[in-house]
Amino acid sequence: VSRGLFIGRFQPFHNGHLYAIKKILGREDEIVIVIGSAQESFSLKNPLSAGERIEIIRAVLRELNALGRSIIVPIPDIHENLVWPARVIEYTPKFDRVYSGNELVLVLFEQFGIETVRLEHINRNEYQGKVIRTKIIKGEDWAYLVPKVVYNYLEEIGFEERIRRLVKHYSEVNL
Amino acid sequence: VSRGLFIGRFQPFHNGHLYAIKKILGREDEIVIVIGSAQESFSLKNPLSAGERIEIIRAVLRELNALGRSIIVPIPDIHENLVWPARVIEYTPKFDRVYSGNELVLVLFEQFGIETVRLEHINRNEYQGKVIRTKIIKGEDWAYLVPKVVYNYLEEIGFEERIRRLVKHYSEVNL
Amino acid sequence: VSRGLFIGRFQPFHNGHLYAIKKILGREDEIVIVIGSAQESFSLKNPLSAGERIEIIRAVLRELNALGRSIIVPIPDIHENLVWPARVIEYTPKFDRVYSGNELVLVLFEQFGIETVRLEHINRNEYQGKVIRTKIIKGEDWAYLVPKVVYNYLEEIGFEERIRRLVKHYSEVNL
Amino acid sequence: VSRGLFIGRFQPFHNGHLYAIKKILGREDEIVIVIGSAQESFSLKNPLSAGERIEIIRAVLRELNALGRSIIVPIPDIHENLVWPARVIEYTPKFDRVYSGNELVLVLFEQFGIETVRLEHINRNEYQGKVIRTKIIKGEDWAYLVPKVVYNYLEEIGFEERIRRLVKHYSEVNL
Amino acid sequence: VSRGLFIGRFQPFHNGHLYAIKKILGREDEIVIVIGSAQESFSLKNPLSAGERIEIIRAVLRELNALGRSIIVPIPDIHENLVWPARVIEYTPKFDRVYSGNELVLVLFEQFGIETVRLEHINRNEYQGKVIRTKIIKGEDWAYLVPKVVYNYLEEIGFEERIRRLVKHYSEVNL
Amino acid sequence: VSRGLFIGRFQPFHNGHLYAIKKILGREDEIVIVIGSAQESFSLKNPLSAGERIEIIRAVLRELNALGRSIIVPIPDIHENLVWPARVIEYTPKFDRVYSGNELVLVLFEQFGIETVRLEHINRNEYQGKVIRTKIIKGEDWAYLVPKVVYNYLEEIGFEERIRRLVKHYSEVNL
Repeated sequence: VSRGLFIGRFQPFHNGHLYAIKKILGREDEIVIVIGSAQESFSLKNPLSAGERIEIIRAVLRELNALGRSIIVPIPDIHENLVWPARVIEYTPKFDRVYSGNELVLVLFEQFGIETVRLEHINRNEYQGKVIRTKIIKGEDWAYLVPKVVYNYLEEIGFEERIRRLVKHYSEVNL
Repeated sequence: VSRGLFIGRFQPFHNGHLYAIKKILGREDEIVIVIGSAQESFSLKNPLSAGERIEIIRAVLRELNALGRSIIVPIPDIHENLVWPARVIEYTPKFDRVYSGNELVLVLFEQFGIETVRLEHINRNEYQGKVIRTKIIKGEDWAYLVPKVVYNYLEEIGFEERIRRLVKHYSEVNL
Repeated sequence: VSRGLFIGRFQPFHNGHLYAIKKILGREDEIVIVIGSAQESFSLKNPLSAGERIEIIRAVLRELNALGRSIIVPIPDIHENLVWPARVIEYTPKFDRVYSGNELVLVLFEQFGIETVRLEHINRNEYQGKVIRTKIIKGEDWAYLVPKVVYNYLEEIGFEERIRRLVKHYSEVNL
Repeated sequence: VSRGLFIGRFQPFHNGHLYAIKKILGREDEIVIVIGSAQESFSLKNPLSAGERIEIIRAVLRELNALGRSIIVPIPDIHENLVWPARVIEYTPKFDRVYSGNELVLVLFEQFGIETVRLEHINRNEYQGKVIRTKIIKGEDWAYLVPKVVYNYLEEIGFEERIRRLVKHYSEVNL
Repeated sequence: VSRGLFIGRFQPFHNGHLYAIKKILGREDEIVIVIGSAQESFSLKNPLSAGERIEIIRAVLRELNALGRSIIVPIPDIHENLVWPARVIEYTPKFDRVYSGNELVLVLFEQFGIETVRLEHINRNEYQGKVIRTKIIKGEDWAYLVPKVVYNYLEEIGFEERIRRLVKHYSEVNL
Repeated sequence: VSRGLFIGRFQPFHNGHLYAIKKILGREDEIVIVIGSAQESFSLKNPLSAGERIEIIRAVLRELNALGRSIIVPIPDIHENLVWPARVIEYTPKFDRVYSGNELVLVLFEQFGIETVRLEHINRNEYQGKVIRTKIIKGEDWAYLVPKVVYNYLEEIGFEERIRRLVKHYSEVNL
């Protein structure tokens, strides 16, 4: 079996992630999806916990009928760049190459002689976690930027409310 | 005995903290005062060490004649939000509810089903550690923002000078 | 959906694990399988990496036709017992109860008011990672203690050889 | 004011601790009581959490009428011996000397040029946390080794039961 | 032998570092050169790894004919200011005083009663790692700011390209 | 230039280390000497600090007239085996192969496809840090097991006394 590795923080999962995953599933037998910064949650940059992100990605994969070909692995940060690819290798089943649109990911895996494939970004201005989080803060529509199943889950757990409270925290409180 | 928990960084202790502590002491038999970011010191955001903050808070409590009803607990950061309330529980004697004006503190303890009480802020524009630190940097008066006993202690340890040297560091040096 | 959580180190996966997983799958809609001590590998107590353990468990679940109902989550140790259940909660999708034959796991989750179910051990004298590792060291047969698919995988990656080299290390070298 | 520092793990607090604290209170104006290995709990060596240990020590100090002269500070381990005294200094109000019967504590503080006072041990064969924990495991009487107020607290939180379950865990389970 | 300690991050090594090292070598028998933030690399602020920085500093010292009088020690950050000087002491051979132009370094070592010597900065506007990294990003000449041997090494490892890719990462990618 | 990497804890440096270093210097242009467990000191297993070990190794290298060809690098443990070789690579200048008599070191570097050379042990029964530390505890002669210059340094810093006090600590104290 051939395997491609894909890394994201998925805060939240959006159509750019979906596009990348579909592409990799089209080229490889299996995909390893790494949830980066797994230890983060309830911050503006990383509002969702690893557990919530796992749940969301599984829902998407189920719709794609790709659960059996996908391996989801949450990995906490190590804050030591040159060591991080080794941790990814440690936590994941053997893979053949890394797909990424993230320059740092590409640079670091290259240091270890691992094959990398540069992913182009589609609709880069909108398909970004940061854009979605900003839209929520501004009260703008963002539903069209994520798969329907993701939107439903986020609704259910009160994602917008969480973002708003986190904004309140970071902007106002400094006791 | 009923116990309320109160969390601050106390950089430095100011009249807003005093107000909150008095309020909690008025409602509960005992108060647990958590010194957050205990591992931090000698930075612009966290100039005082845990040991210095303990000393200051004790001086205030002594004046309030409340030492016997107060439990001071320094707790280092864990940088993993959803786990942090568990560390607070681990380090502190049993408490009944958390008092806080900090939105993130409220959000996180709610995740664990712990009772929270939202504290209103008084004189929010001035009763903030950041405001005090900024006034020192600008050479403005700040004595009226903290209890007299706190001011005296800070004078004694050369707090203003420390702040000024830290400013010098962060603004200038980058060898 | 109802979900049961099961925690093991799977060093290696054996028939006791298989028994427990089947039992939980029989009672719950879904199972969350936590790989504990995820950061450990290449030690006598924890010879397999998280990635290898994920691969093995997936192979077993595939045979059970249970991949779609199972969620595998590797979690690194936190070395702070009272905080550990919070990390498990953080890394995992919502679950209803914890199944375990491990007394400490039961004790700790009880502290957080989470429902626990005590699993009885079957064939306790043999179905243990330690027993298997010891048999390998002694050159005894151990294949009958693990599912066939696990044995094949371990053969393929040279598990016995790895154990032997680790023994050599721990017993002999102290330069 | 003169201050003496005393460090223990208090697992649990026993008459040896009581003796040392009384002695220091007899010589110094104030005592700083450091709870070492604050991050540990629910292990055989460290069954009590920092919060429980704070509660116990406060109960003892209240009986001694010494709460106003005592400062309790929980400090987590740093696992880097030569750095540890600096952390103790960081977490505690200024102190004049360290009292200890622990050779490593004495050695390490000496490296920093801090005055140390060697405490003799009294009734060394019995006044040890380990002895008490062992007696509980064996079902022997241990009440006479700790202050009454400590015993009552430990009874109330089910200390014996906790020890017994932890023993069960460490002796039996290895799933 | 007298020994002076000098601390830098050397991102990259520039003529300001060279000036300081020569000065210290002129006053002391030996110099201990601490590479701070040793664990950092491949970030915009800390592009070079500890290993690369060791190699560069050795090349400079060789030219100065000072290898035999110089001790290079990489030290990872501890993120706990008051404890950091103790870690420096732990990792380094005995030294007599600390030379630094960095206000925080001076403040922290003073807390431990260690002699400090304030280094004046020369050509402060240009002799800074940040200035060099910025010039590279802007495509400006920077070769004159570092010793020739350093420039050659950086050329060889593709330093400019690394900086450019890191800029790309931090400015653009946020998948 | 060709470079060989050699890793030890050097607790203390003994004739076995000397033999290995001479051998590597005979085969390679330069040697990188990694001081493992750099963060450890003042424990029975790791009595000497990184700074002391650097000083000792430099003294030996000076006698060998090999300071200019040797690079000493202290590296703290990472407690995550599969990631550790990446940290070694990060902290050290480029090297061509790893020389070791330590099975785990060989196994781990092999995972990263790095060339390893197995070092035979000479006089294995005596040339071990543990043997030397044990002899000191028993009051036996150990001077013949280490280079003269090492012995002198250890005498000067009171190594035997340190070992004896650490023994006292670990055997007796358990307050």
